[in-house]
Amino acid sequence: MCGIVGIVAKTHVNQAIYDALTVLQHRGQDAAGIVTSDQNKLYLRKDNGLVSDVFRTRHMQRLIGKMGIGHVRYPTAGSSSSAEAQPFYVNSPYGITLAHNGNLTNTEQLADDIYREDLRHINTTSDSEVLLNVFAHELQEQKQLQPTPEVIFKAVQRVHARVRGGYAVVALISGYGIVAFRDPNGIRPAIFGRRDTAQGPEYMVASESVALDALGFKLERDIAPGEAIVITEQGELFTRQCAENTRLAPCIFEHVYFARPDSIIDGIAVYKARLRMGEKLADKIMRERPDHDIDVVIPIPDTSRSSALELANRLGVKYREGFMKNRYIGRTFIMPGQQQRKKSVKQKLNALDLEFRGKNVLLVDDSIVRGTTCEQIIEMAREAGAKKVYFASAAPAVRYPNVYGIDMPAKEEFIAHGRSTEEIAAEIGADWLVYQDLDDLIQACLEGSKTEAREFDCSVFTGEYVTGDINDAYFARLSQLRNDASKGKRNAVENVAIDLHNDHES
Amino acid sequence: MCGIVGIVAKTHVNQAIYDALTVLQHRGQDAAGIVTSDQNKLYLRKDNGLVSDVFRTRHMQRLIGKMGIGHVRYPTAGSSSSAEAQPFYVNSPYGITLAHNGNLTNTEQLADDIYREDLRHINTTSDSEVLLNVFAHELQEQKQLQPTPEVIFKAVQRVHARVRGGYAVVALISGYGIVAFRDPNGIRPAIFGRRDTAQGPEYMVASESVALDALGFKLERDIAPGEAIVITEQGELFTRQCAENTRLAPCIFEHVYFARPDSIIDGIAVYKARLRMGEKLADKIMRERPDHDIDVVIPIPDTSRSSALELANRLGVKYREGFMKNRYIGRTFIMPGQQQRKKSVKQKLNALDLEFRGKNVLLVDDSIVRGTTCEQIIEMAREAGAKKVYFASAAPAVRYPNVYGIDMPAKEEFIAHGRSTEEIAAEIGADWLVYQDLDDLIQACLEGSKTEAREFDCSVFTGEYVTGDINDAYFARLSQLRNDASKGKRNAVENVAIDLHNDHES
Amino acid sequence: MCGIVGIVAKTHVNQAIYDALTVLQHRGQDAAGIVTSDQNKLYLRKDNGLVSDVFRTRHMQRLIGKMGIGHVRYPTAGSSSSAEAQPFYVNSPYGITLAHNGNLTNTEQLADDIYREDLRHINTTSDSEVLLNVFAHELQEQKQLQPTPEVIFKAVQRVHARVRGGYAVVALISGYGIVAFRDPNGIRPAIFGRRDTAQGPEYMVASESVALDALGFKLERDIAPGEAIVITEQGELFTRQCAENTRLAPCIFEHVYFARPDSIIDGIAVYKARLRMGEKLADKIMRERPDHDIDVVIPIPDTSRSSALELANRLGVKYREGFMKNRYIGRTFIMPGQQQRKKSVKQKLNALDLEFRGKNVLLVDDSIVRGTTCEQIIEMAREAGAKKVYFASAAPAVRYPNVYGIDMPAKEEFIAHGRSTEEIAAEIGADWLVYQDLDDLIQACLEGSKTEAREFDCSVFTGEYVTGDINDAYFARLSQLRNDASKGKRNAVENVAIDLHNDHES
Amino acid sequence: MCGIVGIVAKTHVNQAIYDALTVLQHRGQDAAGIVTSDQNKLYLRKDNGLVSDVFRTRHMQRLIGKMGIGHVRYPTAGSSSSAEAQPFYVNSPYGITLAHNGNLTNTEQLADDIYREDLRHINTTSDSEVLLNVFAHELQEQKQLQPTPEVIFKAVQRVHARVRGGYAVVALISGYGIVAFRDPNGIRPAIFGRRDTAQGPEYMVASESVALDALGFKLERDIAPGEAIVITEQGELFTRQCAENTRLAPCIFEHVYFARPDSIIDGIAVYKARLRMGEKLADKIMRERPDHDIDVVIPIPDTSRSSALELANRLGVKYREGFMKNRYIGRTFIMPGQQQRKKSVKQKLNALDLEFRGKNVLLVDDSIVRGTTCEQIIEMAREAGAKKVYFASAAPAVRYPNVYGIDMPAKEEFIAHGRSTEEIAAEIGADWLVYQDLDDLIQACLEGSKTEAREFDCSVFTGEYVTGDINDAYFARLSQLRNDASKGKRNAVENVAIDLHNDHES
Repeated sequence: MCGIVGIVAKTHVNQAIYDALTVLQHRGQDAAGIVTSDQNKLYLRKDNGLVSDVFRTRHMQRLIGKMGIGHVRYPTAGSSSSAEAQPFYVNSPYGITLAHNGNLTNTEQLADDIYREDLRHINTTSDSEVLLNVFAHELQEQKQLQPTPEVIFKAVQRVHARVRGGYAVVALISGYGIVAFRDPNGIRPAIFGRRDTAQGPEYMVASESVALDALGFKLERDIAPGEAIVITEQGELFTRQCAENTRLAPCIFEHVYFARPDSIIDGIAVYKARLRMGEKLADKIMRERPDHDIDVVIPIPDTSRSSALELANRLGVKYREGFMKNRYIGRTFIMPGQQQRKKSVKQKLNALDLEFRGKNVLLVDDSIVRGTTCEQIIEMAREAGAKKVYFASAAPAVRYPNVYGIDMPAKEEFIAHGRSTEEIAAEIGADWLVYQDLDDLIQACLEGSKTEAREFDCSVFTGEYVTGDINDAYFARLSQLRNDASKGKRNAVENVAIDLHNDHES
Repeated sequence: MCGIVGIVAKTHVNQAIYDALTVLQHRGQDAAGIVTSDQNKLYLRKDNGLVSDVFRTRHMQRLIGKMGIGHVRYPTAGSSSSAEAQPFYVNSPYGITLAHNGNLTNTEQLADDIYREDLRHINTTSDSEVLLNVFAHELQEQKQLQPTPEVIFKAVQRVHARVRGGYAVVALISGYGIVAFRDPNGIRPAIFGRRDTAQGPEYMVASESVALDALGFKLERDIAPGEAIVITEQGELFTRQCAENTRLAPCIFEHVYFARPDSIIDGIAVYKARLRMGEKLADKIMRERPDHDIDVVIPIPDTSRSSALELANRLGVKYREGFMKNRYIGRTFIMPGQQQRKKSVKQKLNALDLEFRGKNVLLVDDSIVRGTTCEQIIEMAREAGAKKVYFASAAPAVRYPNVYGIDMPAKEEFIAHGRSTEEIAAEIGADWLVYQDLDDLIQACLEGSKTEAREFDCSVFTGEYVTGDINDAYFARLSQLRNDASKGKRNAVENVAIDLHNDHES
Repeated sequence: MCGIVGIVAKTHVNQAIYDALTVLQHRGQDAAGIVTSDQNKLYLRKDNGLVSDVFRTRHMQRLIGKMGIGHVRYPTAGSSSSAEAQPFYVNSPYGITLAHNGNLTNTEQLADDIYREDLRHINTTSDSEVLLNVFAHELQEQKQLQPTPEVIFKAVQRVHARVRGGYAVVALISGYGIVAFRDPNGIRPAIFGRRDTAQGPEYMVASESVALDALGFKLERDIAPGEAIVITEQGELFTRQCAENTRLAPCIFEHVYFARPDSIIDGIAVYKARLRMGEKLADKIMRERPDHDIDVVIPIPDTSRSSALELANRLGVKYREGFMKNRYIGRTFIMPGQQQRKKSVKQKLNALDLEFRGKNVLLVDDSIVRGTTCEQIIEMAREAGAKKVYFASAAPAVRYPNVYGIDMPAKEEFIAHGRSTEEIAAEIGADWLVYQDLDDLIQACLEGSKTEAREFDCSVFTGEYVTGDINDAYFARLSQLRNDASKGKRNAVENVAIDLHNDHES
Repeated sequence: MCGIVGIVAKTHVNQAIYDALTVLQHRGQDAAGIVTSDQNKLYLRKDNGLVSDVFRTRHMQRLIGKMGIGHVRYPTAGSSSSAEAQPFYVNSPYGITLAHNGNLTNTEQLADDIYREDLRHINTTSDSEVLLNVFAHELQEQKQLQPTPEVIFKAVQRVHARVRGGYAVVALISGYGIVAFRDPNGIRPAIFGRRDTAQGPEYMVASESVALDALGFKLERDIAPGEAIVITEQGELFTRQCAENTRLAPCIFEHVYFARPDSIIDGIAVYKARLRMGEKLADKIMRERPDHDIDVVIPIPDTSRSSALELANRLGVKYREGFMKNRYIGRTFIMPGQQQRKKSVKQKLNALDLEFRGKNVLLVDDSIVRGTTCEQIIEMAREAGAKKVYFASAAPAVRYPNVYGIDMPAKEEFIAHGRSTEEIAAEIGADWLVYQDLDDLIQACLEGSKTEAREFDCSVFTGEYVTGDINDAYFARLSQLRNDASKGKRNAVENVAIDLHNDHES
């Protein structure tokens, strides 16, 4: 997953974009980048690391101009090994930089096409570079000396027609303005807001509404599936639906895990949705285990706290924060002659014996993927003295990979792959395990929504992908790419492949 | 406040000390340092910054040896401007490095004495350098070619006799072993544990028990007030009471705010104490405002969550986490021609409108010092739609400076200085305000203790300092030093004073 | 001035290009860059600084591939303030990177044209970025899926037709090979060589022959004016004359000052030319001052040592190295409250009193530009005890700016501007001064040449520019740009303008 | 070899010491350090690297105060692997830092003694740390609250009595002043000078007179063997002879190779001495080979240029600079899977074919140590077309290690070890070889001296060491230490041993 932001303001935007990126940092801690535009010149800084590490005073002083875009990156399936930071840049036409959140599912085909059509060279394995070049090609095809909203909307139409996958995009056209658009299914979130100043209105686009809140922008609305918005350097706003056959089918995993609880996505308050997940889960427990002997409900911090609290309330059982999270995480150094130690959950969590000793505890997590962490946590609970350890997942069993931008292991690595709930419980060492029902999860999200007609992409639970182009061949190819990448890793020289626009420090 | 750790193990200790320091990072994020000893040589790395920033692979590879000590620093009153990282080093006798948590109240006198007695030069304003030189002088006075437990205990006796204040100390004697001791009032915490290996027992000393837990050491016990322990490189443990007239009067603020909830200090589980603070506070509210109209109890994250949860339980009112904390904090850059912006609470917290809109909310914090943050948070609550905003402090009104290692402003800057509770409520904008009673706070802590005879240093609430040497003259001198330091700040050249042992990077 | 290099080899070329750049470092100490190509991907590292500072192990490990190009930069007139490092990159067509030595005189017009023709955005003030885009545009116009020598030569033809100025260019086309070409007047040098290996021939292009020598490449020949050479990744070499109306009129200043003495440029050994400059100068002195009373000839290190030695031999006067050069040059730091100190020649040179005391000395330098250094050196000679101080310049009086890549001040800043030789002597404090005659300088260079028909660009002495497009309007525009740039310097924010492809460290 | 400097001035000395260190950089490029003192506090910066790399603006701003000392380091025999930078620091008594040039020959014994006497711990293998602690111990023994010249001179007397070897020392006593002294044989150089200002006189001590020249200090005189000078912070100068049985027997290798030619050491102008070495060598050639067929004399840059020029003049043969030195030296990177390439002389020198082709050349170098470089250079000369290659060494055959601070290989590695001149000529591939006679070398140096009674340490030629304590046992121990160190190198962990006062970057 990644986070994007774009701002057109009346004063320098570097600090504002930086602040927005720290608010969106939970969407990606792997790399960060900002581009600004001033007097038809672009200024870029991007590197691996947290926002607070990537941008130093000397970088910020260079990032001049009243409009800019920013990005935080979480490695996407398939490209994790090549580690390219965004935004990307092409110089024709106009000078465009682009950053996006999501994943394209026809990247290879697109790369091949734009080479054949326009001889455009792609220097990385990032789908963002491909997306940028498709967009650039479509803009160039219209041969206009100056971009206009009309011209840009036409280009976005062509992008939607050619590109498959989930994507929320922000792009900056040098000397002109900012463009943002969202895929026709609205899989990844994008929202925009406005802040009025004495010099006129300022506009901001971001992955989540919290970024707008933090900067004092008033939320206008989510960008609609397939819609594009253009904000010129002068502060004019243009919007246009640029796709046919759109529907709102956002990724439900944003509500389960990814988004910040204080965000509102497509009209749904994430926090409220999570409270309701707790309620539904409590109801299911009451139905299935009316005579449960749970003494205390304990969340696995941080995401599941909201659901766990409401679950406890509904069950009428005490809620206690029995695990303390280590906020400061260090590295494991490999000393000469030593081997890599296994990272343990113990470095991240500490169990408060007092809340476990002699009790039947219900641990609550937002979801279960590989199951290895669950297993260690349950073991910690037992070591802390728990009599019985039950486990509840606020989401259904994860059985299928996400192809729209959330990095997940291959199908075979999911603990739920080919196992019943009882078998999973045995595997992770829980006395019993309860998963949220998918209908309940959907309901938990929908109840807060004002939008009538809507769906969710629930592919990680169902294997049904809203873009309709995902099949066994796709996964076979993906698996091949991963194998190649991991082979590359064995060869130190090839593993350091780095994109052309970026000089990593130290 | 600071955190200390010392380990004597059977393999290289660099990673273990590093891990322990990340667990103690909450005690100081300002600077970090590690010293190890191997074959009678010492290896040091210290610098300003978080543990994860200060130690890189190249530093860790140098920190060889099976024993070592570490430190994380929070700037102490009076020395905040000179920014010296610990441990400190003297080469005579033996080669000793030392780190401590706390604050000496007769530093100037000591510095003068050790110069006169031994011509020892103090190159920084750090009381740690003074403490090290006092200890070194007393060891040297005994003129032993090799240190022995006997010789070391005698030196610690002399240190206790000369030094005033609160201090928990860990020192490493090159080629010999580790020493740890605690002031005669046990103001600052220190605990030790043991881990058995095939090669024999390993020992660890730390500020808090969580560090032992995280590394798999079994807690032995707290170091007693005035006691010293010696662990030789071979793994022998010696302990000795080295002070007369000791009593256990630890700083109660560790329980209120400083310590991690999952620590156990002098037999009291911090987490339990905080739960009980919530209970007592609920009882007081029930007594004073039996007809309260509180709709929801909302903690100000993170410290007050435990008290707030139990307070809500006891009141029978809903508990909700209405403030989201930004985990990733960025900087505010000053661009050429701009002025420093005021750091706002908004960068740290975000209010969930849903939990405030139309409700009477009781906000709970662990304590109130300057009151400026409270004021901003209450304003945020009102902006988020709260009908009424009540405020509860889990500790009594802070009215006096701490002189034992917690950095606090001058008396006049406390919001409670010269104000009644009602006046404070008005000042911070609360509809009403309730402070914990001191007796209740003490009781909340004591109820969990197995130790019969004990007191607490409650000086920040009462102005009564357990060391008995704190008077108006002391504060006048402190105030003078601060003024000098802040004058120094205006002169960039003088402000960069740096100790001799350390090369800060960039 | 700048230095360029390009290599197509049978093994990784990073170290070879690095070594070549250190050999060419005298052509530019301001910035350095390398691009390599491997499996159709490009790998780039460039930054301000010396070669030894810019490339660390971590960068070299990324620069994989068997072909690559490199560049060292000396700031060119007009672009010194924007500090862009080379090579530059465009992704369409094919993915091309380019570096060059020289200066274009119609940069603005070209930038405008390529925007209008192809909407290509230029993000810096570097003429190299413009040149790259012109070349890229002309390649793209031919719409070939794969580049061929034919297609490339056609593109170079078009470049020659459009571009004005002096330029020696090396470009790398991703996955295809290397291209090098030289302007139709051959103003800037470019040479190529070959090294045979068991796997087949390797080729190298460079600014000077010393780079070939150092790497064990056998010199093939200079690239002819207007000629282009193509070396494919497989090691095939193609050459073609791509311009009409070419002539060989290289910059004579390479022989006077710029090139390394051990280089051979267009068939002339620089070292030999410098010896002959000394001879001719001796002859002139003998003619004009047959009764001279010179006791000793002293070169101003390093460039003038060859001429001075031969001048002394011819005069029959002792040659002595009376000035010692400080090889290690430090910075002048500005402390808070201090002002910038004037850099003195004393930091660079030290006079050996023994060689000056009581003697009539003839100081020899390669040329005189502003005259300020001469003045200080003459003063040093007098302080060291010289009775009389004479001064000889191995080149004629510099009176006109260079527009082909050598950074020089505005005309008014030359000491020879509007002054006779006697007036200049008075100005710099010499007892008398002798300049080389232009004919003698040309003769000194020509005598070693095997090429019959040739000229030199001697514009800095004559004001006659071989490209024929330089007039007062040109200099007026240049002067305007410089004024704008220096205004920019006053505004720290604007001064840090940086190209998009580069992240400068610290 | 190393360089030292100390200044007591009327304004901040950081820039002046920095400038002096760049002038002395030829004495050591391995590490650099500066300590200043202001208001009884010491400020230190030291690290591996060139002066220009070690000191950045942020470091210089910290180095406040009107007195300070500096050091550049060349690794000394035996300590090269542990890489400690100077100055070193001890805090008792007074706070002293010290830097020195030279080498002690009884380091181990001294380290043992000061531990026994004073329990002083030595944390590195540097003899400078030992020397500092001896000096500190002797100062402390006198138990004076404030240092005085009297007390300091007494301490230096005791140092001379205990310490063996060659040493030129500068030390700074916090809040008091600077001390400098030189061993009783005056083996290593030290000189001082004075600069008068409106605020009173400023004093400077340095290894060589060029440093004084460059900073505008007027040379007072060399420090005499065994003498000490004290300069107080107030600018008072005190001098005292502190040793018995002194004699002036400086290292003759300073004149042969180490010192800058523009320095004057103990009254001898190094440059003049080198000219005379050329004369004497010419006379020997004339004697031994009156019918020589030398066409041209070519120096191997840079040191031998003066001797070679005068040798050529005396022989009446042409002098030509046939080798060009590469001023910019890069590194050889080891790529994954590659092996270390052998560094070749070709990276440092380039032969000008024109000066070699068909000629009989006499190559001149200052001395021959291992002979491997000679061999490669002679090969280069032949490849460049030389008919015959003769070789002259301005110094006699080096057959014994230096123990006073010049790093040299073990005896067995000298090419002259157990070989006649003819055998050496055969080994290096010269047609014939001539060494300077020792008497001629001594005479070349002495002729310029005004001092009547003087000797030189010529131990590298004769094996007679002026300190009289060097025997086979000494070399056996040294050899043992080196073997241990090289074993350590195989173990990466142990090899990174670093002193306690220094944090190396990257």
